[in-house]
Amino acid sequence: MEQQADGRCRVAIERVSPEIDCGRFAIKRVAGETVVVEADVFADGHDQVACRVLYRQSNKELQSAPMMPLGNDRWRGKFTVSNLGRYEYTVEGWIDRFQSWRSALEKRIAAGQDFHLDLLAGAELVESAASRASDRDAAALRHWAQRFRENKAGAPGTAFPRDKELLDLMQRYPERSFASRYGKQLTVFVDREKARFSTWYEVFPRSCSPEAGRHGTFLDLETWLPYIASMGFDVLYLPPIHPVGRAFRRGKNNSAEAQSEDVGSPWAIGSAEGGHKSIHPQLGTLEDFRRLITKAGEHGLEIAVDLAFQCSPDHPYVKEHPQWFRVRPDGSIQYAENPPKKYQDIYPLDFENAGWQALWEELKSIFLFWIDQGVRVFRVDNPHTKSFSFWERVIGEIKEIHPDVLFLAEAFTRPHVMHRLAKLGFSQSYTYFAWRNTKQELTEYFTELTQTDVQDYMRPNLWPNTPDILPEYLQVGGRAAFMVRLILAATLGASYGIYGPAFELCENVAMQPGSEEYLNSEKYELKNRNLNSQASLKDLISRINRIRKENSALQSNRSLHIHQTDNPSLICYSKATDDFANVIVVVVNLDSSHTQAGRVHLDLAAIGLDDSHAFQVHDLLGDGKYLWQGSKNYVELIPESLPAHILHLRRWVRTERDFDYYL
Amino acid sequence: MEQQADGRCRVAIERVSPEIDCGRFAIKRVAGETVVVEADVFADGHDQVACRVLYRQSNKELQSAPMMPLGNDRWRGKFTVSNLGRYEYTVEGWIDRFQSWRSALEKRIAAGQDFHLDLLAGAELVESAASRASDRDAAALRHWAQRFRENKAGAPGTAFPRDKELLDLMQRYPERSFASRYGKQLTVFVDREKARFSTWYEVFPRSCSPEAGRHGTFLDLETWLPYIASMGFDVLYLPPIHPVGRAFRRGKNNSAEAQSEDVGSPWAIGSAEGGHKSIHPQLGTLEDFRRLITKAGEHGLEIAVDLAFQCSPDHPYVKEHPQWFRVRPDGSIQYAENPPKKYQDIYPLDFENAGWQALWEELKSIFLFWIDQGVRVFRVDNPHTKSFSFWERVIGEIKEIHPDVLFLAEAFTRPHVMHRLAKLGFSQSYTYFAWRNTKQELTEYFTELTQTDVQDYMRPNLWPNTPDILPEYLQVGGRAAFMVRLILAATLGASYGIYGPAFELCENVAMQPGSEEYLNSEKYELKNRNLNSQASLKDLISRINRIRKENSALQSNRSLHIHQTDNPSLICYSKATDDFANVIVVVVNLDSSHTQAGRVHLDLAAIGLDDSHAFQVHDLLGDGKYLWQGSKNYVELIPESLPAHILHLRRWVRTERDFDYYL
Repeated sequence: MEQQADGRCRVAIERVSPEIDCGRFAIKRVAGETVVVEADVFADGHDQVACRVLYRQSNKELQSAPMMPLGNDRWRGKFTVSNLGRYEYTVEGWIDRFQSWRSALEKRIAAGQDFHLDLLAGAELVESAASRASDRDAAALRHWAQRFRENKAGAPGTAFPRDKELLDLMQRYPERSFASRYGKQLTVFVDREKARFSTWYEVFPRSCSPEAGRHGTFLDLETWLPYIASMGFDVLYLPPIHPVGRAFRRGKNNSAEAQSEDVGSPWAIGSAEGGHKSIHPQLGTLEDFRRLITKAGEHGLEIAVDLAFQCSPDHPYVKEHPQWFRVRPDGSIQYAENPPKKYQDIYPLDFENAGWQALWEELKSIFLFWIDQGVRVFRVDNPHTKSFSFWERVIGEIKEIHPDVLFLAEAFTRPHVMHRLAKLGFSQSYTYFAWRNTKQELTEYFTELTQTDVQDYMRPNLWPNTPDILPEYLQVGGRAAFMVRLILAATLGASYGIYGPAFELCENVAMQPGSEEYLNSEKYELKNRNLNSQASLKDLISRINRIRKENSALQSNRSLHIHQTDNPSLICYSKATDDFANVIVVVVNLDSSHTQAGRVHLDLAAIGLDDSHAFQVHDLLGDGKYLWQGSKNYVELIPESLPAHILHLRRWVRTERDFDYYL
Repeated sequence: MEQQADGRCRVAIERVSPEIDCGRFAIKRVAGETVVVEADVFADGHDQVACRVLYRQSNKELQSAPMMPLGNDRWRGKFTVSNLGRYEYTVEGWIDRFQSWRSALEKRIAAGQDFHLDLLAGAELVESAASRASDRDAAALRHWAQRFRENKAGAPGTAFPRDKELLDLMQRYPERSFASRYGKQLTVFVDREKARFSTWYEVFPRSCSPEAGRHGTFLDLETWLPYIASMGFDVLYLPPIHPVGRAFRRGKNNSAEAQSEDVGSPWAIGSAEGGHKSIHPQLGTLEDFRRLITKAGEHGLEIAVDLAFQCSPDHPYVKEHPQWFRVRPDGSIQYAENPPKKYQDIYPLDFENAGWQALWEELKSIFLFWIDQGVRVFRVDNPHTKSFSFWERVIGEIKEIHPDVLFLAEAFTRPHVMHRLAKLGFSQSYTYFAWRNTKQELTEYFTELTQTDVQDYMRPNLWPNTPDILPEYLQVGGRAAFMVRLILAATLGASYGIYGPAFELCENVAMQPGSEEYLNSEKYELKNRNLNSQASLKDLISRINRIRKENSALQSNRSLHIHQTDNPSLICYSKATDDFANVIVVVVNLDSSHTQAGRVHLDLAAIGLDDSHAFQVHDLLGDGKYLWQGSKNYVELIPESLPAHILHLRRWVRTERDFDYYL
């Protein structure tokens, strides 16, 4: 910690933030963002202290940023992270002898006391600074010192020791011989912007064939790119693209007996045709895949692949590396199970086997293989069933050489485990959003995600549905329910995604009551859909994603503020840029069956307003414009037409030139 | 942290408590107390984890205590600290393969699945435990393994793998090869009980003379011991007992011009007669002082001396060690000042002088000198104007050899500085109690002191008055105000003290309106008082201190719980022992001028009750007995008679034998 060998280091530095688990883990930022650092910095006695943030990118030169007092010994400074990769930061504090001297002098002058000795003491401080200064500043400082000394006999004016120019000079050359440093080097990992703001579309390439019954290919998927791009997505995520195993292949609706034409689950990875570094032959070739990446890029879409570290019994690893699997007492390989459920088509890898290092290296090489093909975004399947150390090591090593690579953790498990994975390095995380429906649930959960230190290490990616999750809310609420959940995901989360086209087509039939599995799930069979269905939400999706692109307030979660409403079915929240140049207020009717109306009670300070002016809100969704006044304003939302307002705030601002205008 | 070189260490350990500033500082306990340790302990996947607290006293053998799950991956264990000094503790976690196996087996049996392979896997686990076991247990375990293996062919009963005896045996020999340890060794410093529970009386020995105008002596003070002991105090604290300086000596009421008969301030330490290791000749000799310690001990009183590390201009250090003082530009020694105030009778020591090590050693030797005379309690004057490192080093080194020595920090300054001093090692701390008068002020402040992690490092010592502080509340509220503040101090704080006899005689005249200084302050003159004044609170003090001794609930602050009342002038709070064997509910009328009545709304769970039974409360102060029922009960308190109830709860408890009786 800040304990120093030299007893003359008097400044204590405590409670530095942001700091995750005592600095054990890095905080996350994207390039161009600032890191606001706060600390309690104080010393014994009455001397004044000064402090600064010290920071540097990996091994580059140390830089510093001044810290300003917030009162009660709390200080704040900030720095901007411009480049990808790792930065370190810490806090340094020292006794500010010149300010302490100045403050005492002020009081003495105010009391009319003699201060000629103070001037001599001040001269010594100034001369000491001169010895640390550049030639030009040193000359100026010596000149000041001289003035102090010359005044010692007379009755000097009282203004000059408090001169601003002198203060600036002195602050440039502080005495830091006995500065204290916070004992920990804290870390921030800087990702590219997409880590913070991304819009995902999941699609099964094998369902992209225009002909019903034919297995779709990457080439077929190419023809979908304009459709997907037109809705405003920027990440196109594909379930595993590797050869699908044959042994114990699952049939339609996850039946244990597959028919010969059944395509199996893409998550049963590996066959005689290859493993995690191979492409399923029915999808195309590696060349086709690389071409898909290029074509997608032309539409502003990045391809995200899904890495699921598990094997079908046919996977080449099973023969080549039998030691990477657990063996049962009868000598057979242990298949996946969650007793009493058995998944005989899946062999888990044994991360603890005696030769774990070789396994870990091989798995890392899978990432590197796809990176070599041009992939920069990975969706990682069930990371919570692989060891924490594995993720920390592999993600760390990959980011070291490819700091632009992003990892989305698909973990739906206990909170500590989900948080731990985020701390270990995953760039984004799936969340419990799919199961948070009521105003209270959403308020509590998003307060935790965005208003606690969770925001510094975990970036939520909100999915209203996935191939595994058709939530009850969507099953029973009809098309309006899909609209509600879409709008919530897209505005509560700077990153969100949908599993399409099931989502935009409002597919909502579950396997059975009480189940979240889709009936005739695409996980086990090919689909052929009419993308131009009248019921499709594609136009709404396009509109919402355009709103997200045009309003930077929606591209971050940090400013999320939940406002009160007097109707429990209405939730209201806002997001704003730091300077309030862009403010969005969202009101959603969570009841997909009934029109709901009521008053929202805006916390005006959170949206940069006071209650002295009216302001205009423009519904970017429904295009209505309303003149609102003060905190309480009325809304009415009809679920079957549009269950929400996404309101852009136009407000009066006072400019530097002191007149009002509409922003 | 818990990062392990071996990738097979799968358990994560987070958020260990208690932990102060990432383990930088020790928590505090007294001998015989328990340390309750909690942590988030979890692993990837579905395996079950187990964990334990590891602890040891300084370099003694490592011991362990099991941790039990609290739900949501939180675990709790505890250990008792029996001896004075330093203990270390940390947390260790591992995969509990046997419990994981057992849990899977349970599910398989419940589902009616075949489990003969599970039994074989179980046999391997049991045999592995046998290899770690004592001879006798090994034999038993091998017998179990045999039973598992023999059943592999048949259709075994399902009970025996779940046998309790087997489970106990297996938990005795867990597989910990890849256990994870929390990366930090946390520390607890164990003091003797008086650090937690103490009752202080401050007196100026020089005012103990029976003859007005004669300087009192230690011998005079001896005659006061029965009086002080009769009131139930156990620490007798004396302002500095060293020779009082003559240069710039202050006269009565802190006047700059002392008369020849003026005795000066005991805090202006040092004269030709000696410094910090000498006794003021007018008080007696070192032998007299040692005798006082012995005599006080016979009355159950420990002598606390006041160490104020500052010098009068006559102090021998000034000549012997001029380098320990700051020099002004004119060559004179810098006296104390807080511009525009000047304290020319005091030279501060310069803790940053080039020879700081020698100064620090000398100051440490002062503590050791008085320890050699038999002193075990120090009240330290203005520790916040000496460097933090100094206190950490000196207190640490002294406690290393004298773990029974206690240090009370007399710092009235900014919160972070007060807390830092406590963290650095002070056993007890003065507080802002003197300025917390209203229900809201007291509630907020005591919630912070007792219900946050502050409780783990800072032990408040509450003083309703000191020679420097006659609070406005006491100035204006008459005798009732003294009763109110006494009762609050004695029941809110396990440690409290009064500056007497000014307190029990209700001396309440300030130097001037708006000042907290006593008129004719004892700091600058001798006093001669009538201890038997009719108005004296000595009987009330005796009673309250007896109540404190007889009710262990009042001897700790940890259980403090503030209950609601429907009258803002009534504050109600409780303290209870962990087992609720002793529960005290205090209700105080904070309005010293008017009778106040209202209902208290007891939080019954906090006092170990439910609302199905009536309970009796016995006012240990006024001796009334009341039958209360449920949460809401009526009280009326008349300030001039007794402004408070100190209620002892007698409640129905259900015993193991299942009948009710009065406790």
